[in-house]
Amino acid sequence: MFPLPQMECREPAACLSSASTPAVGPGFRDDVEGECSRRAAAQRPELCGVGDPVAMFSSDSSCLSSRGRVIKWFWDLAEEGYRTYHMDAYDEDKNPSGIINLGTSENKLCFDLLSRRLTQSDMLWVEPSLLQYPDWRGHLFLREEVAKFLSFYCKSPAPLKPENVVVLNGCASAFSTLATVLCEVGEAFLIPTPYYGAITQHVYLYGNVRLAYVYLDSEVTGLDTRPFQLTVAKLEKALQGANSEGVKVKGLILINPQNPLGDIYSPGELQEFLGFAKRHKLHVIVDEVYMLSVFEASHGYRSVLSLDRLPDPQRTHVLWATSKDFGMSGLRFGTLYTENQEVATAVASLCRYHGLSGLVQYQMAQLLRDRDWIDQVYLLENHARLKAAHAYVSAELRALGIPFLSRGAGFFIWLDLRKYLSEDTFEEEMHLWRRFLDNKVLLSFGKAFECKEPGWFRLVFSDEPHRLRLGMQRVRQVLEGKSQLAEEGPPCQAQRT
Amino acid sequence: MFPLPQMECREPAACLSSASTPAVGPGFRDDVEGECSRRAAAQRPELCGVGDPVAMFSSDSSCLSSRGRVIKWFWDLAEEGYRTYHMDAYDEDKNPSGIINLGTSENKLCFDLLSRRLTQSDMLWVEPSLLQYPDWRGHLFLREEVAKFLSFYCKSPAPLKPENVVVLNGCASAFSTLATVLCEVGEAFLIPTPYYGAITQHVYLYGNVRLAYVYLDSEVTGLDTRPFQLTVAKLEKALQGANSEGVKVKGLILINPQNPLGDIYSPGELQEFLGFAKRHKLHVIVDEVYMLSVFEASHGYRSVLSLDRLPDPQRTHVLWATSKDFGMSGLRFGTLYTENQEVATAVASLCRYHGLSGLVQYQMAQLLRDRDWIDQVYLLENHARLKAAHAYVSAELRALGIPFLSRGAGFFIWLDLRKYLSEDTFEEEMHLWRRFLDNKVLLSFGKAFECKEPGWFRLVFSDEPHRLRLGMQRVRQVLEGKSQLAEEGPPCQAQRT
Repeated sequence: MFPLPQMECREPAACLSSASTPAVGPGFRDDVEGECSRRAAAQRPELCGVGDPVAMFSSDSSCLSSRGRVIKWFWDLAEEGYRTYHMDAYDEDKNPSGIINLGTSENKLCFDLLSRRLTQSDMLWVEPSLLQYPDWRGHLFLREEVAKFLSFYCKSPAPLKPENVVVLNGCASAFSTLATVLCEVGEAFLIPTPYYGAITQHVYLYGNVRLAYVYLDSEVTGLDTRPFQLTVAKLEKALQGANSEGVKVKGLILINPQNPLGDIYSPGELQEFLGFAKRHKLHVIVDEVYMLSVFEASHGYRSVLSLDRLPDPQRTHVLWATSKDFGMSGLRFGTLYTENQEVATAVASLCRYHGLSGLVQYQMAQLLRDRDWIDQVYLLENHARLKAAHAYVSAELRALGIPFLSRGAGFFIWLDLRKYLSEDTFEEEMHLWRRFLDNKVLLSFGKAFECKEPGWFRLVFSDEPHRLRLGMQRVRQVLEGKSQLAEEGPPCQAQRT
Repeated sequence: MFPLPQMECREPAACLSSASTPAVGPGFRDDVEGECSRRAAAQRPELCGVGDPVAMFSSDSSCLSSRGRVIKWFWDLAEEGYRTYHMDAYDEDKNPSGIINLGTSENKLCFDLLSRRLTQSDMLWVEPSLLQYPDWRGHLFLREEVAKFLSFYCKSPAPLKPENVVVLNGCASAFSTLATVLCEVGEAFLIPTPYYGAITQHVYLYGNVRLAYVYLDSEVTGLDTRPFQLTVAKLEKALQGANSEGVKVKGLILINPQNPLGDIYSPGELQEFLGFAKRHKLHVIVDEVYMLSVFEASHGYRSVLSLDRLPDPQRTHVLWATSKDFGMSGLRFGTLYTENQEVATAVASLCRYHGLSGLVQYQMAQLLRDRDWIDQVYLLENHARLKAAHAYVSAELRALGIPFLSRGAGFFIWLDLRKYLSEDTFEEEMHLWRRFLDNKVLLSFGKAFECKEPGWFRLVFSDEPHRLRLGMQRVRQVLEGKSQLAEEGPPCQAQRT
């Protein structure tokens, strides 16, 4: 349950559970999510459970502190996969036999639209105040635009307020600050798995905060249920489990739309989860970084900020960024919305380490206020392209007889490849993943998301048609070869969409 | 010696010394440095020495963790001064009787040059790779430019290497990362005082690292000595003092050119300090953020990177940024240069929380490679303007009979106003500072830099002539009124320049 080095943990009991579930490093480089753990099993020291895990990182020859060595260990692990990919990245002209990246959750479909908008003359504006020390919460003009933007697109019942907005250089930083100001060292957030694995590092590297997993599975237990469905009963059970191990849980992290499931919580579900949190005085961090990447409107996505009444507004903190919804993960623009002024202020106090350029703040304000472009150009086209790419991949998968989950949100499809594993183990999952990579297509394996069932993979479809076609061709080659060997795999319970 | 809340300190002995020297909050908002501590004495809880300081921040009604409350406390303290200034900031047209800011160390003399350069068409460039997840060390094209830039302006004996460069969103972040990866919780860096007070927070808020002060004083002890001179003997003494209190010192922080003294270390001094560090296996962080703001070339500033041989290159880490030398503190661009790949990698691993926009990375590469503009336009004009502003303020101070220190580097003059204190206390220093503020001019008081002698102030002169004139007029008004009351003040030993 707590797979990280236990350097700062003050409750030794918190280590115990992880001894039985040693972790493969999660997908902790956004840029090569999933791939990063290529050699995880081989490199990973035993992190928890027995003895002093920090000792694993001790070395007289190192200049680093013990936590520095842990921090570097994360990088090295990622770096290996990173190098594999970047040394042989696909390029249509220069390296057509290079690796196609269907592992990183980026939207590569709209660079043309973005480039045109971001190079318009209104984007190049310099004035002295933009070059001087800012308000670390973000310039007021930007927080005003963010508040208006979120009010409109989240459909908030009342206008959202600039004073509740904090601007940071990405949601990773928002997680880092919130973990630090809400939790003591060694405390934990509940998080349903599978989940975007990088959050593990976001709350741990600076904050020394752990994740307590709410394990979901693919089994469908009734007519109204769906695979990997989160319920209050599962939340209660996970909370009790953590408590019984002496781990203090301070909050719950919800990702909606969910990554990697592409799942969407209904307003009723949201209310239930928030009610659970309120009963236990837990903070809720709602990561809505894919909120405008819902390309099937019929699924009725609702932001938590659209709810008429938040059960515990003082403990509800909402994250959004341009990384996904505007396909600009390299722009480093994220926001926190919270009515809790204590939390907003404490986060702002850390924002000098997470500040973004005044020039970019100006550009983002211009972008967010340009409702015509957003609605008539960008979202319209972006959703159409996402939909087309999704339709293409879905059809391919159906033709291959591969079950998958995808509810019309996000950039990814959650594939059930369990029947292609010769054994129901994560070693076999890794083995299959390596076969994909050897065939020059990068996917993300389920263990990187702490999925408890081996054999699930995340496939990112938000890429240009020619790359997508080639990537799917390579996926097909692996599976058609492999499927002949392992047709006796376990039956699949995943819903088809 | 260790004036911060002792939340993570594992060596209780480290608290002891600070009981006798309770700290006034240092200048921890860059944007209102010095002003931020307006109510510090009144608000400050007893942070160290007796009992459990964390208890001071405990409150059942708070949503924050104990460290979150400490982090927020820093902000609140700053915020009060911040509000005072920002609610009444001087504006030539709209608020001519507002507060003139001679407290914040920003260069406001070259916004015209910067605006012209930053709005040239080469600055607006968008390509997909800039919008995608970057290499967290910084894009290679930028690190290459940084390496060339530093090689040239630091006069390195051999070309500096891009792989030793890490790009971050400012030097504050660089301090935060280095503290975390070099030190365990509760360990310390040596730092000579007076020093740029914000470093206290940079190493503490995330890293829980303390500063062990090397107290300097204004006494001149011989022909070849100068006020506030750092010597190896003083470093040795401070190190022994920390050790005897059970505090593990991991490194030494040097600021060169120094803030707030405007002092410059000679190559011989640098070698001595680095030799001291090597003998004790200490890391040295050299903050050279004012290296191109040496407007008196005759003073012969030398970057540590210009030395023929670093005594311990694996433990020498150099910081630079555009905040000061290019007058763009709002741009958030800083760099770390270190030959130690372990350190560079560990810092890079934290850089996802300190990343800057791809678009800004491109702009900075354009700027740094434009050697003609830098040399023929910017530095030439910037130095001339700094020199003129400095000459004006120096003349004013001489006319007032105020001793001061200033060696032709940086944006500030270190004023000896001890004779204007009716008592030799920091309360009186604060009282004088308030009199300035009441007369609508903001300076920074010495305690914000942990100066051990009450009565020193930092005055920033890098402002437009009309604001500078008005500011100096207001300073003069206060001193001429006050000086009549306290002419029997202690004799001044500061060097005049």
